[in-house]
Amino acid sequence: MKMKIWCNLALGDVERKLLLDGLHGHELIESEVGAASVLAEAESDPLLNEVDVALGQPAPQDVLQAPKLKYLQITSAGYARYDTPSFRAGVQARNITVANSSGVYDLPCAEHLMAFMLAQSRNLPAALSENSCASGSAEWNALRAGCRPLAGQSVLILGYGAIAEMFVQLLAPFNMNVTAVRRSPTRSERVPTVALDALPGVLGQADHIISILPESAQTLNFVDAKFLAEVKAGAAFYNIGRGTTVNQADLADALRSQHLHSAWLDVTDPEPLPEQHPLRDLPNCHITPHTAGGHLGESLSVIRHFLKNLQAFESGQPLQNRIM
Amino acid sequence: MKMKIWCNLALGDVERKLLLDGLHGHELIESEVGAASVLAEAESDPLLNEVDVALGQPAPQDVLQAPKLKYLQITSAGYARYDTPSFRAGVQARNITVANSSGVYDLPCAEHLMAFMLAQSRNLPAALSENSCASGSAEWNALRAGCRPLAGQSVLILGYGAIAEMFVQLLAPFNMNVTAVRRSPTRSERVPTVALDALPGVLGQADHIISILPESAQTLNFVDAKFLAEVKAGAAFYNIGRGTTVNQADLADALRSQHLHSAWLDVTDPEPLPEQHPLRDLPNCHITPHTAGGHLGESLSVIRHFLKNLQAFESGQPLQNRIM
Repeated sequence: MKMKIWCNLALGDVERKLLLDGLHGHELIESEVGAASVLAEAESDPLLNEVDVALGQPAPQDVLQAPKLKYLQITSAGYARYDTPSFRAGVQARNITVANSSGVYDLPCAEHLMAFMLAQSRNLPAALSENSCASGSAEWNALRAGCRPLAGQSVLILGYGAIAEMFVQLLAPFNMNVTAVRRSPTRSERVPTVALDALPGVLGQADHIISILPESAQTLNFVDAKFLAEVKAGAAFYNIGRGTTVNQADLADALRSQHLHSAWLDVTDPEPLPEQHPLRDLPNCHITPHTAGGHLGESLSVIRHFLKNLQAFESGQPLQNRIM
Repeated sequence: MKMKIWCNLALGDVERKLLLDGLHGHELIESEVGAASVLAEAESDPLLNEVDVALGQPAPQDVLQAPKLKYLQITSAGYARYDTPSFRAGVQARNITVANSSGVYDLPCAEHLMAFMLAQSRNLPAALSENSCASGSAEWNALRAGCRPLAGQSVLILGYGAIAEMFVQLLAPFNMNVTAVRRSPTRSERVPTVALDALPGVLGQADHIISILPESAQTLNFVDAKFLAEVKAGAAFYNIGRGTTVNQADLADALRSQHLHSAWLDVTDPEPLPEQHPLRDLPNCHITPHTAGGHLGESLSVIRHFLKNLQAFESGQPLQNRIM
């Protein structure tokens, strides 16, 4: 059966060719409406009313109202826009399959976390900027003593999904003590994992606290003054989940007092942070502008992921990263 | 038998206590002569004439002339100062055992390399400094496209010793193609390893070229214009061996033309580089001031390493990191 495939990815020639070749005759309907990124508000697009499949970031209300839509492939890993009770109920009632693209981003995100954690443990920000000191000087000794081998240190992961799964595999040879916290442990996790109510028992042990929490009503300001007060003095905090999960004023306080040694943030609220934001003035706050999942050929990876899923969808096989 | 132990490590109270407790009655002779670091020229110290064991960085000539000396524990991993035919012949004739401390530094050095390589692959220098760009902007897309997952990329390691051995263990879960080059492959290496004369066949394949070469007459200016011309366009170069192994003018040229994407140097010649040095002006040259082996509690690690070796020496067991 020939299908109509809506897509609001910005396609270059190479991407369009890959997509068309993989569609095997299905009709591609390119749209510029919706949102270029899951981080932006999505606009409505009447073209969705005509299609069977959507690839991209359509407006949630459009999805629920599209009469023929059977499969939505979200092109990001995060999907807060669609993660509401009414949307879940709507797609279930309409029998619309929904998958995200976490398989495209889990490895780059896990490598970004490793880059952050190793830059922290090797004292790179200071060593790269204070590189005029002489061997044997007090400054040099301080730079060296600011390094700590990861072996034997403790990591706490908040939110155990595909990214954490990849991250703990990369961590394996570093001989760290790894614990995870998630809403509902399944006992299939690769590391000891506790439920949310056990957080107070493990939070104070960690040298490195890694947040991969998604945005939701439950995670709003999850990392606040109370949380940060329970953190071990000198610990480092990392966030590649969502900016709204952190109370940024409280985080700035913990960094200013140096109770928290450093923060490494790939996500903030808003993005980008205003130039005058207090977190920008703190030398121990390191920010990348939501680039953790990025990689050369990213759009091609998204399209390949979609084409595999489309084939699975057509043949009644399970989809990768199905979320609804 | 009670022995006299010469030491020119700068000992704090904690270090001195650890050392004295471990000496079990042997006499400690603290010296401030010699060199604080293997990177500095060592002065002569007549106290060496009275001792059985030396821990630190004594002047090579002192070692050869010390009538009672039986065991020298060098407190660094590099030992160019002692690595001469005359010194080797001298200690062999005198039956002096010599060990270095590479076991103290191999893990921190390997983690430093991982930090460099992940900072490179995640485009951290640019992402940390250009973090005001908005999601979806051209600058943002460029930052993301500047990231490349390590999986599937190629690494070439120059110099396969204890640091490389540790490094390839840390690399294992990243699924890279790893090759090493060393003077005399033993076939016990953990990765495919070729001899020096096979370098031209493998150099042009590598996305990441890692030098862990020691300083010697053979390695002087090993990385020069000819070497760099054979490197794949867009590759990254890393040096945690010794600065003299690189022709820095040639390296600057390769970075300026961007034939080499970036360099990450923990070692330079001299150290530190003068403020006006051309490598300092290049935005794609990232320098740390010889901190790769450093870590909190480093002196304690050196002392523990020595005490283990001293015990082995006394009981006729093999020493760790024995080099002569």
